[in-house]
Amino acid sequence: MKEIRAISALANRFSALPGVGKKTALKYAYSVIDMTDADVDAFCIALKDVKSEVKLCSVCGNFTDADVCEICKARKSDRICVVSYPKDVAAIEKTGAFDGVYHVLHGTLSPMAGRTPDDLNIKSLMKRLDQAKEVIIATNPDVEGEATAVYLARLIKPLGVKVTRIAQGISMGSELEYADAVTIAQALGRRVEL
Amino acid sequence: MKEIRAISALANRFSALPGVGKKTALKYAYSVIDMTDADVDAFCIALKDVKSEVKLCSVCGNFTDADVCEICKARKSDRICVVSYPKDVAAIEKTGAFDGVYHVLHGTLSPMAGRTPDDLNIKSLMKRLDQAKEVIIATNPDVEGEATAVYLARLIKPLGVKVTRIAQGISMGSELEYADAVTIAQALGRRVEL
Repeated sequence: MKEIRAISALANRFSALPGVGKKTALKYAYSVIDMTDADVDAFCIALKDVKSEVKLCSVCGNFTDADVCEICKARKSDRICVVSYPKDVAAIEKTGAFDGVYHVLHGTLSPMAGRTPDDLNIKSLMKRLDQAKEVIIATNPDVEGEATAVYLARLIKPLGVKVTRIAQGISMGSELEYADAVTIAQALGRRVEL
Repeated sequence: MKEIRAISALANRFSALPGVGKKTALKYAYSVIDMTDADVDAFCIALKDVKSEVKLCSVCGNFTDADVCEICKARKSDRICVVSYPKDVAAIEKTGAFDGVYHVLHGTLSPMAGRTPDDLNIKSLMKRLDQAKEVIIATNPDVEGEATAVYLARLIKPLGVKVTRIAQGISMGSELEYADAVTIAQALGRRVEL
């Protein structure tokens, strides 16, 4: 049976979401039929608001709807925790084990994918270092995350700033986003100097 | 950390989709930030199109974007397969084991939930029976699906139309939508007269 055009089109849109396969996307699309018109309108407004309201913090690069994010506004700290993505800030914040500030790279170094230091939010990190005593590198413990950590350590250590790496309590190959709170907290507590 | 307003609002919308929990909804909402404006616009149009274009077939009650659905248009048959929801039509069609026509009730009888025969698409089924030799009842093999089958059999058999029920090859308590093609095909092949 051919799917209805509008259903296929919407299912295609849903498949662009992370981890959504063809069958799940169709299920989502069919469920929209049961929503009220008001709900669908609100859904559209919510989609567009995210695009128009969410931007990057001018200090740390985290998501915010102001010029400076809530964390940068609320905290003064000489410890900067460097992560790959905004979702990693959320994962660390949930543990309550860190009260310093963050810096979001928006990626990792990857010669394979052609991502060089210029593609990452590194320049603005360098500008923050005069107020920093320690930079904690909390990229994922995989090949790209390690390479990024080594690169940053070589860049920052000559400036006299201590550079540490979260402990490898998080198992190799897994992703920070999905680690449990205790594991993340331990990895922060046992960080080692690079 | 407090989520950004626009992110929370969109995550709320995503949680209205079937089987989407709070964490998944947030993941979906964050992924929208990485979409282009054009993609988000297309997403909105697709959502609204589903609401405006998808309606119910005037003959069988299945979803369609015309007055009469593709199946009713393409097939003439004296066997009508009665299902609870449009998704069940899709599940049966996928097996290729049935070439008759369908009738979608849009629910099941449920005294607990207050769903009576008047809430189901039964009247238009009764009007189709003069051209029918057999009505195959393919509601889910659970309490409500069984009750609906028994009710319809009592209603239709006195009119001289054969009423059958798909075989209980599908295990009690499970749902038609998730059954594999072979199981659905067997259940159709071994249907028994009520």
